[in-house]
Amino acid sequence: MAGPIAGKAYPFVETRRVRWGEADPARIAYTPRFLDYAMEAIESFLTDRLGASFYEFNMDHGWGTPFVQVELNFRSPLTPRDMLATEVRIARLGGSSVTFAVTGRVGDRVSYDGRLVCAFVDTTGPALKPIAIPPRYRERLEPDLIPG
Amino acid sequence: MAGPIAGKAYPFVETRRVRWGEADPARIAYTPRFLDYAMEAIESFLTDRLGASFYEFNMDHGWGTPFVQVELNFRSPLTPRDMLATEVRIARLGGSSVTFAVTGRVGDRVSYDGRLVCAFVDTTGPALKPIAIPPRYRERLEPDLIPG
Amino acid sequence: MAGPIAGKAYPFVETRRVRWGEADPARIAYTPRFLDYAMEAIESFLTDRLGASFYEFNMDHGWGTPFVQVELNFRSPLTPRDMLATEVRIARLGGSSVTFAVTGRVGDRVSYDGRLVCAFVDTTGPALKPIAIPPRYRERLEPDLIPG
Amino acid sequence: MAGPIAGKAYPFVETRRVRWGEADPARIAYTPRFLDYAMEAIESFLTDRLGASFYEFNMDHGWGTPFVQVELNFRSPLTPRDMLATEVRIARLGGSSVTFAVTGRVGDRVSYDGRLVCAFVDTTGPALKPIAIPPRYRERLEPDLIPG
Repeated sequence: MAGPIAGKAYPFVETRRVRWGEADPARIAYTPRFLDYAMEAIESFLTDRLGASFYEFNMDHGWGTPFVQVELNFRSPLTPRDMLATEVRIARLGGSSVTFAVTGRVGDRVSYDGRLVCAFVDTTGPALKPIAIPPRYRERLEPDLIPG
Repeated sequence: MAGPIAGKAYPFVETRRVRWGEADPARIAYTPRFLDYAMEAIESFLTDRLGASFYEFNMDHGWGTPFVQVELNFRSPLTPRDMLATEVRIARLGGSSVTFAVTGRVGDRVSYDGRLVCAFVDTTGPALKPIAIPPRYRERLEPDLIPG
Repeated sequence: MAGPIAGKAYPFVETRRVRWGEADPARIAYTPRFLDYAMEAIESFLTDRLGASFYEFNMDHGWGTPFVQVELNFRSPLTPRDMLATEVRIARLGGSSVTFAVTGRVGDRVSYDGRLVCAFVDTTGPALKPIAIPPRYRERLEPDLIPG
Repeated sequence: MAGPIAGKAYPFVETRRVRWGEADPARIAYTPRFLDYAMEAIESFLTDRLGASFYEFNMDHGWGTPFVQVELNFRSPLTPRDMLATEVRIARLGGSSVTFAVTGRVGDRVSYDGRLVCAFVDTTGPALKPIAIPPRYRERLEPDLIPG
């Protein structure tokens, strides 16, 4: 089991303001925007941990990471007054899949949490074929695994 | 238990083309867009069944329907060549919550399915207080309940 | 100058409901959503007139249609109560560019109008090189030209 | 004419990464996303200069700033590899309207520029009535005016 990457903060947290255009006429962030927040946080997490993310995976490496399952729980609403901090950790590191655990907070208040599962697949063939997570990547993700 | 509403089709299906701008550089619909599809289908479903939806609930009636939990499973990718048909049914009709069951298909192929839970709340006070689903609405939703 | 395409309606009009999630806390459609509406109407227009649009251009033909300029005027707000009908016509058919003229209405009320210019480019090389609009496409777009 | 606000940087620049989900199957940012970028930069600009933006205007002050015209020119494409820096300045400060001038760059390369005009309106009555820009706000925007 690999140790923390030098110079990286644990856990990874992505911070961003909630935008006017993300809130709906109930004056709180529209439900689907939370999935955007979670996916953007995961994109930043991968860039930080691996030095590459969805775009580089697809453009430079010939593989992709389609998501196969997402589950989100909404704990308290967000408004454009809020600065949202989404923590990203890894709940499970499978042979060719990763389960991300996300928790979004405004200060100490939890706004949402959830789990998102993606598969590693070869995108060079006609069909999307699962591939093993490359060992150099697996090693860099292990320090983010939630213990137990 | 109320019967079907005269003149309505069962189950409710919302059909729409997948858009160029909804697909990402992997050339398939971006994961969070599926939650937009599901929510838009539910919005159309409510308008069809109740003659009112999120906007009228909030603007005209003083109550809202915040979502508390969503779960989506991605079965096969979507591209802008696809015409997506999302079926909306009701998995559970609680005292002040509704669990929607959605299934998105392109022809016979299932692209995604999921469950989304919303609560009925009073939005006129300082905090969001759960309220009972109005009986006239409950009655019009019962025919969409999945049996068993 | 080619005549109207048999079986097609003139002018082309794309109709769709304004969505809850497209409106902001001012309870009207958020400004950038109008550009989504215009682009989606153009996507549908091209599919109707040419039998192909952005996705087929890029995936099947090796050329693209990047937009180089857009201008939108907002005449009256939209809400999720509105059914928006966006008319698409062609203001100018250049050698390798098209200027679309769009007008969005709710009934007789104009909500927005604008002009959007795209270029036809070869996407198979390292740089995007302008190409002439294929004659078979030009012919099918001519009937949509605004006279004068 | 008011001078620069102490402690503020001139011109205002909003920096953010281009996201995977903002790029389309041509593998560059989708045209309407540029209007999102411009509007988000203006939202941040107003928050920085005035200590309030769209949400506070509407929720706390009873007035709004609907946009009446936007014009964007696309100079070079963006991809998720890019860190976009959007500069916001003021081209014109009218009695009850503001014209923003935006320029988006990746390093030295210009990706887009444009002008966006908003009106200040009273939102408490049945119709949107233009109001004069509050003097305390006008004063704080003057240092961002493009000379000449």
